[in-house]
Amino acid sequence: MYGRLEKDNCVMPKIDLDAVPQQNNTGYPAPFHEPMAGRWIRRLTPVIGLTEMGASQVVLKPGGWSSQRHWHEGEDEFLVMLSGEAVLIEDEGETILRAGDMAAWPKGVRNGHHLINRSESDCAFICFSAGNRDAGGAYSDIDMVFTEAGYLHRDGTPYPARRIP
Amino acid sequence: MYGRLEKDNCVMPKIDLDAVPQQNNTGYPAPFHEPMAGRWIRRLTPVIGLTEMGASQVVLKPGGWSSQRHWHEGEDEFLVMLSGEAVLIEDEGETILRAGDMAAWPKGVRNGHHLINRSESDCAFICFSAGNRDAGGAYSDIDMVFTEAGYLHRDGTPYPARRIP
Repeated sequence: MYGRLEKDNCVMPKIDLDAVPQQNNTGYPAPFHEPMAGRWIRRLTPVIGLTEMGASQVVLKPGGWSSQRHWHEGEDEFLVMLSGEAVLIEDEGETILRAGDMAAWPKGVRNGHHLINRSESDCAFICFSAGNRDAGGAYSDIDMVFTEAGYLHRDGTPYPARRIP
Repeated sequence: MYGRLEKDNCVMPKIDLDAVPQQNNTGYPAPFHEPMAGRWIRRLTPVIGLTEMGASQVVLKPGGWSSQRHWHEGEDEFLVMLSGEAVLIEDEGETILRAGDMAAWPKGVRNGHHLINRSESDCAFICFSAGNRDAGGAYSDIDMVFTEAGYLHRDGTPYPARRIP
């Protein structure tokens, strides 16, 4: 049902998105988890057997956020809008993304990004990552960074929360 | 014009595909290069500054092939159809891919894949890769493998051709 791995690595090469469960969880500590209530993720990586890249299909309900605005020290990211409309927010301002639009964030560029669905309808995108997830990074608008150890205040004090593996 | 890197890593986060040159080249030795005549690639990775993943937008003209049918020992691959229609060919047979369809190939699965555009119109997809490109792999339907050293016959004799970096 999920794709090739369901059938001895050989059949159904096309990914059956509808068969992959949508998850609404986040590891963010309160209150930073709140804007994620409208985010529904299909984490494809484990389902399809990838080990070198992350791949997730994400649906944002109206008002939903993709994440807190962040950047990665060691991971490249790439996003392809699939349907609907979202606002990409970075240091310089806002950019509307619609189906077929793409954006990428090379590792180490300390310009935080996230998407917010300000429309009246769902939007969907797929995002990819590769590199060293444990190299850490930071959240641009809040008192939080992330390292191999988890979520920390900027002064290094840990938050009582765990990143999702 | 190309994206953020054109403007000191900060402006134009949306990738301007029209500004990225399309390339029709392939490193395949003759006659294996012939079916690639209808393949036009925008190699995004260097343009947008990624180092941990490969990302290319590909247009196949009617009759065009994405590649010779192949698999990778050390690279994961992921493809998202953007427009039009192509036939995905693997060991077990054929699957039609249309806009929004996705497929993935985990590293080390020795089931070759490629796409052929058998329609009357252009099709487009974007494909991603991550992992160890030099770990090599093989082409399923022809007497060719690839290693860090380049293209070889199955008996190890080199072809007089170079892989594109």
